Amino acid sequence: MRKIEHIGIAVKNLDESNTLFEKLFGHPPYKEEEVASEGVKTSFFKNGPNKIELLEATNADSPIAKFLEKKGEGIHHIAFDVENIYTEIERLQKEGFTVLNETPKKGADNKLVAFLHPKTTNGVLIELCQEIAE
Amino acid sequence: MRKIEHIGIAVKNLDESNTLFEKLFGHPPYKEEEVASEGVKTSFFKNGPNKIELLEATNADSPIAKFLEKKGEGIHHIAFDVENIYTEIERLQKEGFTVLNETPKKGADNKLVAFLHPKTTNGVLIELCQEIAE
Repeated sequence: MRKIEHIGIAVKNLDESNTLFEKLFGHPPYKEEEVASEGVKTSFFKNGPNKIELLEATNADSPIAKFLEKKGEGIHHIAFDVENIYTEIERLQKEGFTVLNETPKKGADNKLVAFLHPKTTNGVLIELCQEIAE
Repeated sequence: MRKIEHIGIAVKNLDESNTLFEKLFGHPPYKEEEVASEGVKTSFFKNGPNKIELLEATNADSPIAKFLEKKGEGIHHIAFDVENIYTEIERLQKEGFTVLNETPKKGADNKLVAFLHPKTTNGVLIELCQEIAE
């Protein structure tokens, strides 16, 4: 784990939250992207070496729709940048963490991703992410 | 706002969570510190350009005790590194954010800090922090 790649924030309305975070950072998101498999529309803001990802649900079965219903808007996950997601998954499983995606899946922003179950990480949903080589 | 300085995570037991996050990162916290004015014991883990701060309440009136009671363990706040906390507070107030500490206060890890009210930031408790010059 080399740095915080991004923090994911669940929002009800992506356009309104883009305006809000543009005021916070002083610049607009550098991209928007829909991840149909996850039922989310996302936008990304750069912040030095880190990013903030805003997530809006696109259907009622989306994990973000369920999160908003249960907890309201707020921080959804922390994603850590890893050099090799496969060896990191293996290392963390040996350490006793529950990895939700033993086989990493394609996430937003050109990444391979895998999540750790929050019950093994003090209630924090942790994402591992590795940039997909061009 | 130059980067994510740290993410604050509320935990029930600092020693147990130190062990957990040591397994996650592969190294122990670089410091522990009590902030009596906030009713917290903290530990800090480095992660590249960022840090993770674990927070345990030291009394029942601590904001962390109240957070744990209401929401359980998990992410408590995001702190952004700022060059000048005074001009940043002024800028954000003009943009419509509610700043909880118009006069920054001394926080953990040698920082001047100020918080933004989560009702104005999509449910996210945001901390501004500026390193105190030696």
